[in-house]
Amino acid sequence: MSSQYPPNLRIRLPALILLLEAALILIFGFFVSYDNRSQNLARDYPVFQDVNLMVIFGFAYFLAFLQRYGFSSIGFNLLLAALGVQWAVLVDGFLFHFSAGKIRINLQSILTAIMSITTVLISTGAILGKANLMQLTLMAMVEVTVFTVNRWMAVNLLQIQSHVSVMHVHLFGAYFGLMVSWTLYHSSLSRKAEKERSRAISNMFAVLGTLFLWIFWPSFNSALITEEDKKWTAIYNTYFVMATSTIAAFSFSMATSKNGKLSMAHIQNATLAGGVALGFSASDIQQPWIAMVLGLAAGTISVLGMACLQKRLDPALKIHDTCGVLYTFGLPSLLGGIIHVIVILTNHSNNLSVFGCSALIEVGALSLSLCLSLFSGLLTGLILTCKLWKAPPVTKYFDDQVYWEVGLYFILLRLVQIGIQKVSVT
Amino acid sequence: MSSQYPPNLRIRLPALILLLEAALILIFGFFVSYDNRSQNLARDYPVFQDVNLMVIFGFAYFLAFLQRYGFSSIGFNLLLAALGVQWAVLVDGFLFHFSAGKIRINLQSILTAIMSITTVLISTGAILGKANLMQLTLMAMVEVTVFTVNRWMAVNLLQIQSHVSVMHVHLFGAYFGLMVSWTLYHSSLSRKAEKERSRAISNMFAVLGTLFLWIFWPSFNSALITEEDKKWTAIYNTYFVMATSTIAAFSFSMATSKNGKLSMAHIQNATLAGGVALGFSASDIQQPWIAMVLGLAAGTISVLGMACLQKRLDPALKIHDTCGVLYTFGLPSLLGGIIHVIVILTNHSNNLSVFGCSALIEVGALSLSLCLSLFSGLLTGLILTCKLWKAPPVTKYFDDQVYWEVGLYFILLRLVQIGIQKVSVT
Amino acid sequence: MSSQYPPNLRIRLPALILLLEAALILIFGFFVSYDNRSQNLARDYPVFQDVNLMVIFGFAYFLAFLQRYGFSSIGFNLLLAALGVQWAVLVDGFLFHFSAGKIRINLQSILTAIMSITTVLISTGAILGKANLMQLTLMAMVEVTVFTVNRWMAVNLLQIQSHVSVMHVHLFGAYFGLMVSWTLYHSSLSRKAEKERSRAISNMFAVLGTLFLWIFWPSFNSALITEEDKKWTAIYNTYFVMATSTIAAFSFSMATSKNGKLSMAHIQNATLAGGVALGFSASDIQQPWIAMVLGLAAGTISVLGMACLQKRLDPALKIHDTCGVLYTFGLPSLLGGIIHVIVILTNHSNNLSVFGCSALIEVGALSLSLCLSLFSGLLTGLILTCKLWKAPPVTKYFDDQVYWEVGLYFILLRLVQIGIQKVSVT
Repeated sequence: MSSQYPPNLRIRLPALILLLEAALILIFGFFVSYDNRSQNLARDYPVFQDVNLMVIFGFAYFLAFLQRYGFSSIGFNLLLAALGVQWAVLVDGFLFHFSAGKIRINLQSILTAIMSITTVLISTGAILGKANLMQLTLMAMVEVTVFTVNRWMAVNLLQIQSHVSVMHVHLFGAYFGLMVSWTLYHSSLSRKAEKERSRAISNMFAVLGTLFLWIFWPSFNSALITEEDKKWTAIYNTYFVMATSTIAAFSFSMATSKNGKLSMAHIQNATLAGGVALGFSASDIQQPWIAMVLGLAAGTISVLGMACLQKRLDPALKIHDTCGVLYTFGLPSLLGGIIHVIVILTNHSNNLSVFGCSALIEVGALSLSLCLSLFSGLLTGLILTCKLWKAPPVTKYFDDQVYWEVGLYFILLRLVQIGIQKVSVT
Repeated sequence: MSSQYPPNLRIRLPALILLLEAALILIFGFFVSYDNRSQNLARDYPVFQDVNLMVIFGFAYFLAFLQRYGFSSIGFNLLLAALGVQWAVLVDGFLFHFSAGKIRINLQSILTAIMSITTVLISTGAILGKANLMQLTLMAMVEVTVFTVNRWMAVNLLQIQSHVSVMHVHLFGAYFGLMVSWTLYHSSLSRKAEKERSRAISNMFAVLGTLFLWIFWPSFNSALITEEDKKWTAIYNTYFVMATSTIAAFSFSMATSKNGKLSMAHIQNATLAGGVALGFSASDIQQPWIAMVLGLAAGTISVLGMACLQKRLDPALKIHDTCGVLYTFGLPSLLGGIIHVIVILTNHSNNLSVFGCSALIEVGALSLSLCLSLFSGLLTGLILTCKLWKAPPVTKYFDDQVYWEVGLYFILLRLVQIGIQKVSVT
Repeated sequence: MSSQYPPNLRIRLPALILLLEAALILIFGFFVSYDNRSQNLARDYPVFQDVNLMVIFGFAYFLAFLQRYGFSSIGFNLLLAALGVQWAVLVDGFLFHFSAGKIRINLQSILTAIMSITTVLISTGAILGKANLMQLTLMAMVEVTVFTVNRWMAVNLLQIQSHVSVMHVHLFGAYFGLMVSWTLYHSSLSRKAEKERSRAISNMFAVLGTLFLWIFWPSFNSALITEEDKKWTAIYNTYFVMATSTIAAFSFSMATSKNGKLSMAHIQNATLAGGVALGFSASDIQQPWIAMVLGLAAGTISVLGMACLQKRLDPALKIHDTCGVLYTFGLPSLLGGIIHVIVILTNHSNNLSVFGCSALIEVGALSLSLCLSLFSGLLTGLILTCKLWKAPPVTKYFDDQVYWEVGLYFILLRLVQIGIQKVSVT
């Protein structure tokens, strides 16, 4: 009845995950303890929960747009986040907070870990439906490690502010994911499979996730900023940037379709582009209109990219980008990086020599993230093509049935639907 | 395959929205800057996010009950909010906070703007499915302007407290929307079209939005109150009022149906009626039992209105109220206004002369809102019937396909469903 | 067309609920007033809203996994919470805060009431789909009363900390519900009815609720703790315990299925088991690794219980546990209780005599909760089998149509689906 595909994972995957978890617990036992210094519970905990909600819930449903891949989008997201956060706390702890043989963690540590794991969730978007849980788990471990090393280099070698270094998540996650997607490319992916489409219902869930991301993005962009003044600026700017990128998303989605209709995929992706683009300079932009222009530009790039570029670029580059992460996260974060450099230069135009240097350093940090993500993504992708991980065959892509018990009832309904389609095509 | 309807909007609508946005950015550039005075981040930001969540997410899904209009309900809500908030910040700024050629905005400004935009979303409920995005955009701009002028008159001429003046949103939005709906009336709307019904699934999404509105209504009613004592009272009262209007909703929904069954539409609408009715007097009621009685009354009015009045009133008045905003927002807010006057009188019965005057002023403010909303709603409605806006024909009402790409798959499934219905009718 | 079943509830149920509400308002009027002492709005209100969101929204959707019982799961949850919270405020007030003929309530009171009502929602999970609203209302009133008395005995006789006494909700709710379920047992329930299954869509809603519970569980476990230091510890511990019980859920769900596939029911239930198990000792565990081990153990017990025990235990004990509350709440909270005792003993191993006594008291409190819940559950169950309540017949179990107007359209679609199934079976 149900698919005979990968029975072997039944042993292999639980064993891998449990072993990893055992190792994590051991390391936590030897090195990690709680930091009992008083923190500002009233100020920090609600923002922490906003970001937690975005990552665990928002991203999960944001990725649930495929008609037959909802369970996997949401379930895998949860598992990767649960595993990745623990690992990210450790890597971040060893690199940034290791002293006297101990890592002392607090809310800030867990928050940084949750935000770092966003890289993995973005990369997952690029290879959504094409990798099994074993491959994803491996990718998560590698990506979190490399991203934190990247952050360490940016902060310690380039003297980038710590909260700005975390904002590289979008850039890093997108290009890492695209390289992995490149290694997993298969020619049959160039024509969109029926299973790869969304349905009205799956889109209703996806837009649910999107709205939560949209609403709490001000928390994401301001969470790690310590000065309260700058926190406020980041909140205001993010609110306006989300609003204008929404305007751009609707306008250009309508303008680029041949019959003036909106595409839900455009709306889902482009409304968030503004928040991504603002990440680097959220607290440096002092005027609302600048944020608004940035949001408009980011939304425009995102929709135009999806509407005009994607169909041509994907086959040409042999990259199949399921969720369009290049257009939601990749291009807008590049734009944001460039704008950040310009903002630094103009904010301090009276002292160009010092801040020219600081601008150069930001360019350096961007290039570092870009290079490291492309390189480590490529390497990870190559490892993932190894037969050891029992990658699913192309015919089993985008399908919950491979990983989940979906019940006889569902399968029957599905068969009827296929029948209807065949009849209507003939 | 897909509908040939309004290809012209492809140019017109994006052009309109982008022009509006360009104008907004220009005005922001010349007049708006951030207010850097320290605010209470810990206290105000979580409440801001609660209200933001209600308006952007809660209302969107609350309106998503039509079986084929989910994308539009949610998408249009987001666009109108994104555009309207920017405009509301400006109008509010020019009327209330303009000094030395500058508007200085802070969280309070954005929060007020978000709450003002609620008028538009409520009005949208009355004409849900019957107006295109061009008409809605126009309506949003006009309504936000008139509502803020209304607020300015209430605060500056009648000396109403600022936070109470914002609570007129429900009253204003409902009656404005009903007048617009009256101008858009078409005789065929009197018999409920198949597309106008809800489905189990669309109701599951609608109740999702309703629950979020229910849960965060205490934040809505207390957000703009500045004294902490009164904030607490508003929170407590709102919690109890929501609870008892829920009791009324369930009881009367069951009692008014001929076979004792609950109607999800009643539950969705009437559970919120208590929060609406309490709006004006949230911080003035000092005893929980008064709030509880008010909630019970509001819920009862709301269900009885929907169950008994709607079928007769709508054709009689030639108003087609898709979402029943009269019963969720219109009548309960009138009730709330009356109760507010009584509460003022009884709270200060020892000094009747002063507070009789203050009660009279509240009556004046209510009448002002009512008159302005009816009049401006009528005028807006008449403008919207103009051919320039390419209003959709009645046959295309309540249908996502007119505005959204919904995919071949969806349309096929739909055809099959229609087939099934036809067969079963014969 | 629609079912002719229980027309009599049309009068009886609204009358019962309205009478109850009238009584509540009267008691509130005579005894309850607001406590105007200043509280920490910034610190406490966001956490209050987190818990409110969990109970009103999270639990509602968590229980919405049955394919044809979504409206009832969500709607009944809302009604029971709205009614139960008012009653819980009163009972808690009379037992704990009654002085000078008045109960003075504050946010803490409402929060405790919301958390107490969780017992009812958990018990509802065990008899989901098998009891009507009349039975559930009655159960809610009894259960809240007994639970609060239980809490009073634990706090005043056994000197258990107040916040720990509230954490008995999971234990109490689960075993109370199981006893009620035992009395409602019917032999036909042993083979799973088609209506009792979940569908992909209903699971998408259920996992939505689950994720909200998962995300805000740290708020639940820390809400009533007063010392800020301990609050932080509870937050950290809960975050890690949720993460590791997720790992266990995925691993063992895959390992126990015969073809290595995940079961969404396992994921929904077992990911939360960690939070349940930690409840008692959230602020007493000082090392993250201990919380992590506890989470792993709780998740494992939960999945193994559902996968291996449920099929055998349910018919043997004649208990039909619709939602598997024994495995999500019952067993993990027992484990948590045992761990709590061990933690107390080891935390103070230098002063064993004193803390051996304190450990004994905890054992006493656990036993008390267990006995009271089993006994009162049995009694309540026996009362509920009384004919007076017009319990639905077994053929009408798990079906929204009995209680809700679901529309002709839905019924037709349903008939077609049944047709398809019959054809495919032949």
